Amino acid sequence: MIVVLKEGAKDEDVEKVRKKIEELGYEPHVLRGMFRTVINCIGDERGKSDNKILEAMEPVDKVLMVLEPYRLASKTTNPEGTKVPIGKGVVVGGEKVVVIAGPCSVENESQIIDVAQKVKEAGAHALRGGAFKPRTAPYSFQGLGKKGLEMLAEAGRKTGLPIVTEVMSPEDVKTVAEYADVLQVGARNVQNFPLLKKLGKTNKPILLKRGMMTTIEEFLLAAEYILAEGNPNVILCERGIRTFETATRNTLDISAIPVLKKKSHLPVIVDPSHATGYWEYVPPMCYAAIAAGADGLIVEVHTNPEEALSDGTQSLKPEKFKNMMENLSKFVKAVGRKL
Amino acid sequence: MIVVLKEGAKDEDVEKVRKKIEELGYEPHVLRGMFRTVINCIGDERGKSDNKILEAMEPVDKVLMVLEPYRLASKTTNPEGTKVPIGKGVVVGGEKVVVIAGPCSVENESQIIDVAQKVKEAGAHALRGGAFKPRTAPYSFQGLGKKGLEMLAEAGRKTGLPIVTEVMSPEDVKTVAEYADVLQVGARNVQNFPLLKKLGKTNKPILLKRGMMTTIEEFLLAAEYILAEGNPNVILCERGIRTFETATRNTLDISAIPVLKKKSHLPVIVDPSHATGYWEYVPPMCYAAIAAGADGLIVEVHTNPEEALSDGTQSLKPEKFKNMMENLSKFVKAVGRKL
Amino acid sequence: MIVVLKEGAKDEDVEKVRKKIEELGYEPHVLRGMFRTVINCIGDERGKSDNKILEAMEPVDKVLMVLEPYRLASKTTNPEGTKVPIGKGVVVGGEKVVVIAGPCSVENESQIIDVAQKVKEAGAHALRGGAFKPRTAPYSFQGLGKKGLEMLAEAGRKTGLPIVTEVMSPEDVKTVAEYADVLQVGARNVQNFPLLKKLGKTNKPILLKRGMMTTIEEFLLAAEYILAEGNPNVILCERGIRTFETATRNTLDISAIPVLKKKSHLPVIVDPSHATGYWEYVPPMCYAAIAAGADGLIVEVHTNPEEALSDGTQSLKPEKFKNMMENLSKFVKAVGRKL
Amino acid sequence: MIVVLKEGAKDEDVEKVRKKIEELGYEPHVLRGMFRTVINCIGDERGKSDNKILEAMEPVDKVLMVLEPYRLASKTTNPEGTKVPIGKGVVVGGEKVVVIAGPCSVENESQIIDVAQKVKEAGAHALRGGAFKPRTAPYSFQGLGKKGLEMLAEAGRKTGLPIVTEVMSPEDVKTVAEYADVLQVGARNVQNFPLLKKLGKTNKPILLKRGMMTTIEEFLLAAEYILAEGNPNVILCERGIRTFETATRNTLDISAIPVLKKKSHLPVIVDPSHATGYWEYVPPMCYAAIAAGADGLIVEVHTNPEEALSDGTQSLKPEKFKNMMENLSKFVKAVGRKL
Repeated sequence: MIVVLKEGAKDEDVEKVRKKIEELGYEPHVLRGMFRTVINCIGDERGKSDNKILEAMEPVDKVLMVLEPYRLASKTTNPEGTKVPIGKGVVVGGEKVVVIAGPCSVENESQIIDVAQKVKEAGAHALRGGAFKPRTAPYSFQGLGKKGLEMLAEAGRKTGLPIVTEVMSPEDVKTVAEYADVLQVGARNVQNFPLLKKLGKTNKPILLKRGMMTTIEEFLLAAEYILAEGNPNVILCERGIRTFETATRNTLDISAIPVLKKKSHLPVIVDPSHATGYWEYVPPMCYAAIAAGADGLIVEVHTNPEEALSDGTQSLKPEKFKNMMENLSKFVKAVGRKL
Repeated sequence: MIVVLKEGAKDEDVEKVRKKIEELGYEPHVLRGMFRTVINCIGDERGKSDNKILEAMEPVDKVLMVLEPYRLASKTTNPEGTKVPIGKGVVVGGEKVVVIAGPCSVENESQIIDVAQKVKEAGAHALRGGAFKPRTAPYSFQGLGKKGLEMLAEAGRKTGLPIVTEVMSPEDVKTVAEYADVLQVGARNVQNFPLLKKLGKTNKPILLKRGMMTTIEEFLLAAEYILAEGNPNVILCERGIRTFETATRNTLDISAIPVLKKKSHLPVIVDPSHATGYWEYVPPMCYAAIAAGADGLIVEVHTNPEEALSDGTQSLKPEKFKNMMENLSKFVKAVGRKL
Repeated sequence: MIVVLKEGAKDEDVEKVRKKIEELGYEPHVLRGMFRTVINCIGDERGKSDNKILEAMEPVDKVLMVLEPYRLASKTTNPEGTKVPIGKGVVVGGEKVVVIAGPCSVENESQIIDVAQKVKEAGAHALRGGAFKPRTAPYSFQGLGKKGLEMLAEAGRKTGLPIVTEVMSPEDVKTVAEYADVLQVGARNVQNFPLLKKLGKTNKPILLKRGMMTTIEEFLLAAEYILAEGNPNVILCERGIRTFETATRNTLDISAIPVLKKKSHLPVIVDPSHATGYWEYVPPMCYAAIAAGADGLIVEVHTNPEEALSDGTQSLKPEKFKNMMENLSKFVKAVGRKL
Repeated sequence: MIVVLKEGAKDEDVEKVRKKIEELGYEPHVLRGMFRTVINCIGDERGKSDNKILEAMEPVDKVLMVLEPYRLASKTTNPEGTKVPIGKGVVVGGEKVVVIAGPCSVENESQIIDVAQKVKEAGAHALRGGAFKPRTAPYSFQGLGKKGLEMLAEAGRKTGLPIVTEVMSPEDVKTVAEYADVLQVGARNVQNFPLLKKLGKTNKPILLKRGMMTTIEEFLLAAEYILAEGNPNVILCERGIRTFETATRNTLDISAIPVLKKKSHLPVIVDPSHATGYWEYVPPMCYAAIAAGADGLIVEVHTNPEEALSDGTQSLKPEKFKNMMENLSKFVKAVGRKL
């Protein structure tokens, strides 16, 4: 950590800040420049409560951080990369690219079983489906809740696919964990800290979606909340950030993939359905994500998007999903991985 | 609602879409233009489940909305504006501008009582203070929890000020409601729908902060979640949105004030402390907010910002707060209101 | 400037970077921390060609700047603030708040003279009007060019108001400077460096609009281009930045006013018409801007907005402008200034 | 075009708006809904001067557009896609993926010839290099100007590679066109309309970079400026947009590729160097761009990035570029194209 003082800082100011730095547990080294005095603080600044507090001191202009603020999520913790097993023989972060597919919402038993069978035939490795749905408007379909979980579990049993579903509230963690193989945290909940803490106390794999307003640093700090409670099985999911562009629902931040891979050991998957909002843009974004180094994909598939209770416009029909999977294999090969 | 078909839509396409529109409960009026066919849909599109689903139909290019999607939060529901009483003689949305002040976090009993007395002397109408704190990093101070609520309540009793504090999880609503006069929803929880629903079932005033990536439409839909459960006492709070600019912590969207006032009947207050992140920018933003028509302010004040356990850099010292309040009275007068 | 090396940097790496720093003209001070080595570079980093180049060196993790990169635009150059005279008795940056008003485009002689007289009666201090118009689409009205300038000058003569108009290209600087009292650089040209350099060689006051994606640092560096060529008469104009919010045309960054006032000595005015895009939001934003410390306003006024050839939706009618000016005087008084 | 009136619009209001619509050359069809009256306007709304003017009419709530505002850039103008020849046997938009490579700036003759030979050996199809450089700060290296053009042309002659270089000002178009095979418009000039018009009058291929603040619609309207002057040879270049994320220099909007391909017939290339700002993220973004359907790439390569006069941190060394090209061939094959 480096503390830059304001122009014209006096000896007593420097001394005051120096002392405070010592109190915080660092070893201060004062250096007077031509225009400014800076104080280098030797010590581990990660995992400290709010070093920025020094900026509240009158003589301080700004505090510059040398290290990233996360520790357990950092690449240095596990340079070889973490593998997260999510079901029989399905591992996210290994040599194989993992594809999770299914409808936005579970609507009824025959729908979810039908989709499950079709995505399995096309080569998907896991089934997604929402039972608890976060919706912008209170009048939109809110999901089938526990009934939806049961249907999803049934579809999982019938196909052998591990199931991935969202949990929205700390109160529901226990229930959802009974049915799901992977618990998903939605974009709007990426900084729902009570939820993250609760999930950190389970032993289930967590699929953590980046919020549409979340920086990469904040995203890794959200993962840190889960890791810090003892659950090492976190899968990061880039799903588009909010920008000024409105031609797509969000802007898929594809460069986040190599950035996350450089900064963290956690596996990274991509959700091109929510990112773009239109099914026709989904296949090219799937190919791009794998080309950029993603470990997997989560894709919305619906047998009848026009009747879907949510997100129909961004869902692929099963035949289009199948076609995408066939093309995908070429890109998977190009990156030297397997599907 | 208006449905625009793709170029070259055939008669059977038009018919298919027309039928679907009828199924959704609208009266369709087909109009063929020079290049495109559009279908005007007569009916109330608000409060419907996902009209955008029509965009999933092959012949449909896009769906344009005529009405705003919220209903209870809409200005038309109460054109004169809603007044929310938050304590003895303190009403947000009336003639008087309401100032809520206090520290970011409750740290100990003497701290909160000391600040409470000082902000009261300076003219504040309510006391803020966090007991449950949402923090970006798990290693930062997370608040005193229930102990903090007790201290806050004690400070409220001693000064007669109503107290405002954040609730982060549906599980905590009952506890926080026992101590607080106003329950605050933080920016990160503006789309925490289980929390909003639970708050909608209380009879407490809710101070709902806009998220840093929430559009005004989404913000009013979040309010709609609370209103739809039966609680009419919602106070909207603009607290800065996330933009590319980094000179301030967020960008205070001051024009959101007249926009919200035009579209909704709910009272609007402004939080310049979180918006700017630096105490020295807080007073001018307070004046600007009132000049733009805000009904009140929520401002961070700390007796010793350099020792604050959170957000010290954006907290005013009591004497600076007092000075701000004196200046504020001129702007309050200029808008024809009272302090 | 502070150079942070990567983890595990060896002695020879440190030496290599140290040498390079000396070559760039700084005095390097190496400090080894617990995890990282940092090199403090003593010297004036402002006005240097691309210090970030050090980030291209293999052992370097990042380069942190201690000083702002602008020099002439910096507050320290003229702590008392710069006053820019723009016509007989009209000074921007002095005690008096300056209001510039007029139509988006000059459309014909009677229109511009009519508006000029009306804004003068209402108390405006200068007349704005576009002759060269930057328009998003090539099919939109592009302005009357030189003819428009002549009409504008005539309106200026008739009313005694100094005139403000945009120049879009280095080729037009000479012509526009013959007619106008203040040359305006539009938001899209804030980083049109050949234009800025040419304007720096004139002795005319320059009204420099912030781009819709320009950071405050980039904005001051754009001003620096003009100042560095020898023209000290730069007026900064905040006119809204582009964000995800679409309820307004752009988002007026009102906190940019105190930030610019803190970092620079140049006067700051605000354009609420382009920022909001709707005339009804213009008056509250005028009041807010003055309350936040702006030195003036530039406001669109049109006698018949429904017939305007550009930007009619954001133009005030003369009577509404007059009404705004009357209210404005209260806020001007509240900040201790004059109108 | 569809005009939505405000709630409570009276017959005379409707009539007034109807008349105005007729004056603008449309055939109005009035339809009264449950809450609002809408007027469908039949006619070609593209290429009209500012239809939004109707929003300035008192009874009008909003104007919704049915068609995209560009015409010549629209996919419908040339559904098979436009091929832009840029040199002997090099065509952008055809079966072959085109790679343009070279340094950010031309620094001296041996440097540019050296890089040219190396990128040619590695398989590049064209040479880039800046002679006129737009730089954020006036103190940064501004390019060698005409001397740089001569060196660039010499490097082109020696290697047979067509050359691509930026033009910043209408005044320089003639000079740059004498030396360059492709004239580049930089991100900051995408809405420099006098420059676009001048380039539209040349017969040179134009490489038009998207601005960091430009929507896809505005980007295509910028292309329309060039096309409307008679020059059909426009190459679109996505180079990252500005968002809140700071881990990369900008955010590469990879989904812009399929969106542009859907909406326009113009070829699309990608600049991953400026988008990410770090050379190590460049190769994965190259692969992703091609996987997403881009027609080519423009990549910064420098023999000695640590000594580069600009943008060294984002330049690949020749051996890394060569390695990238080898990998790229796999992705090119996966999309069924050639390199």
